[in-house]
Amino acid sequence: MTYELHYWPTIQGRGEFVRLALEQAGAPYVDVARKTGAKALMAGLRGGPRPAFAPPYLKDGDLVIGQTAAILFYLGPRLALAPQDEAGRLWTHQVQLTLADLVAEAHDTHHPVDVSKTYEEQTIEAGRRAAGFTADRIPKYFGWLETIITRGETGWLAGPRLTYADLSAFQVVEGLRYAFPRATGRALAATPALATLASEVARLPNIAAYLASDRRLAFNEDGIFRHYPELDGD
Amino acid sequence: MTYELHYWPTIQGRGEFVRLALEQAGAPYVDVARKTGAKALMAGLRGGPRPAFAPPYLKDGDLVIGQTAAILFYLGPRLALAPQDEAGRLWTHQVQLTLADLVAEAHDTHHPVDVSKTYEEQTIEAGRRAAGFTADRIPKYFGWLETIITRGETGWLAGPRLTYADLSAFQVVEGLRYAFPRATGRALAATPALATLASEVARLPNIAAYLASDRRLAFNEDGIFRHYPELDGD
Repeated sequence: MTYELHYWPTIQGRGEFVRLALEQAGAPYVDVARKTGAKALMAGLRGGPRPAFAPPYLKDGDLVIGQTAAILFYLGPRLALAPQDEAGRLWTHQVQLTLADLVAEAHDTHHPVDVSKTYEEQTIEAGRRAAGFTADRIPKYFGWLETIITRGETGWLAGPRLTYADLSAFQVVEGLRYAFPRATGRALAATPALATLASEVARLPNIAAYLASDRRLAFNEDGIFRHYPELDGD
Repeated sequence: MTYELHYWPTIQGRGEFVRLALEQAGAPYVDVARKTGAKALMAGLRGGPRPAFAPPYLKDGDLVIGQTAAILFYLGPRLALAPQDEAGRLWTHQVQLTLADLVAEAHDTHHPVDVSKTYEEQTIEAGRRAAGFTADRIPKYFGWLETIITRGETGWLAGPRLTYADLSAFQVVEGLRYAFPRATGRALAATPALATLASEVARLPNIAAYLASDRRLAFNEDGIFRHYPELDGD
């Protein structure tokens, strides 16, 4: 069965967490909106008895699943990217949900007060929000991830093997490095196990091939992780 | 086995979504920090190989689970508050995750730019954030919930029976009614099925008994849903 991923065709965004899992597993999938455009993407939100609230959503046959973390919870065991036991699967999901909170906070640095307006219409508020994000929030989340990796003693976040949570942690590190290179560099200097995990993920053969392909979109200022130098602190 | 819920003892907050599920099911639980205080709550975040990032967390024997939606995903089948089939359980979880997004946006109306500072230190930004939230975001989320309830034709969000997602939708409606009575009233006038669902949940015998008990904390201006009249639009 070929999975259908439905997400904005011009940004990495939240869809990228799903793409990385599918790519690492070598699973057959179609990135639908990159073929058919965003109009069909939004139309797909309106039909059916269980419509997703927003992209991304995944179709697997008749099943439609929205919410990035829920998609990964579903795919994890199917792609051999989650532990087998219930406690391990819940833990992996919990890490993913916490990464999702970090992603939402990263988004709000450039849209702190009005999601319907551009960044340029809320730069002053963005500066204030980004100051706390870079000084306090990135270090706090990274410190939590570092603690988990260190205590686990395997180099990964959820047990002896790679899981989708590791792929997602890599993506968050990459995104924050793009958006806030100075603040993220400082935070990573204090969290070497997380930095190593991100490097290890980038070196996985399937991930390395994906990152070098034209399937991997570049970060840009339409996505979640945006590089506005004025938000990156001193 | 008695469940241990660990959450801030003086607010409803995110812990309330878990409390409502436990109360509706008549499950044995202890609201630990209401007995031992917040110091032990935070200490509980630091130990163990799989520490939660933030409250609430649930202990069930040796298992510790953080992230509200993950806690409910775990409890759902155990409390007979989730569908039996995988697709139904995923859907219920997806609704819960979307409600969690709405809750996070509600929080950010009073803390749009600096989570470490008080509301009074960011009232201007809060006004701007709340304007979009009350005018656009509440109606959009409520409209999605209304669509689901209407299409499902059972009065509930996820199938023929009450689930934890229905309890959570009730709580979100209650919280928004407290925080933004005018904007929420307007949104509910356009979403009668959601309004009915919230009323039906409030009338469930176990929920009604809980709401009348001293275990139900009052909404207040330390929680997620805060009533600042100046944020409630015209």
